[in-house]
Amino acid sequence: MTLPNLKYTADGLIPAIVQDVKTKRVLMMAWMNATSLEATLQTGFMNYWSRSRQKFWLKGETSGHTQKVVRWAVDCDADTLLFEVEQIGGACHTGFESCFFQAYSPEGTPLEITEEKLFDPEKTYASK
Amino acid sequence: MTLPNLKYTADGLIPAIVQDVKTKRVLMMAWMNATSLEATLQTGFMNYWSRSRQKFWLKGETSGHTQKVVRWAVDCDADTLLFEVEQIGGACHTGFESCFFQAYSPEGTPLEITEEKLFDPEKTYASK
Repeated sequence: MTLPNLKYTADGLIPAIVQDVKTKRVLMMAWMNATSLEATLQTGFMNYWSRSRQKFWLKGETSGHTQKVVRWAVDCDADTLLFEVEQIGGACHTGFESCFFQAYSPEGTPLEITEEKLFDPEKTYASK
Repeated sequence: MTLPNLKYTADGLIPAIVQDVKTKRVLMMAWMNATSLEATLQTGFMNYWSRSRQKFWLKGETSGHTQKVVRWAVDCDADTLLFEVEQIGGACHTGFESCFFQAYSPEGTPLEITEEKLFDPEKTYASK
């Protein structure tokens, strides 16, 4: 594997934007380090670095809601990654398809959420 | 304006993902602080904070390639923003529509760039 020369933060991290390959909806943004990026490219499934838990994180390891990489790109500054994926289930731990389910008016007022949750997080993450 | 309660980094920044409202292509990711977010919402045009130049940055102030906000959302952790915009010209300072013009194979080999640049950066940024 010949990875491009990426610019990581002082903590060794790089943000990864994740987009549904079919609908183009942005699903989430999470952080990778060099090892989780390598794991992602070697397995074809999104792996992250959890800053809060300080550990590797295979997306879907608990929920089954994996993200299969279809294609990926690096931005012009080589400090942000973009992945287009096939998302199983929902990307968000709250049950929604996307972590960006809460829209706001230009004035900063939260708009009503009209979409349905794709799964019940209490059931999905129960006893796991 | 009643902004949602956002989680900024220790440097007071929050990442903003920018997506073309019509094509859904992800155009760029840049950083905002609270003041640039307020300026964005008050003016309706994307304003950032440049970490390298340590200054506010109205997207398009030199190039004319502004980004008009159509809608925006906050993610479930309240630490990442997503904006859908009407992009004038190209978002990338290199002349491409998107900063994510360089795709890679799963093995990490850069793929050939087949899209054309939308503008010539030497002309666009000359003597400005």
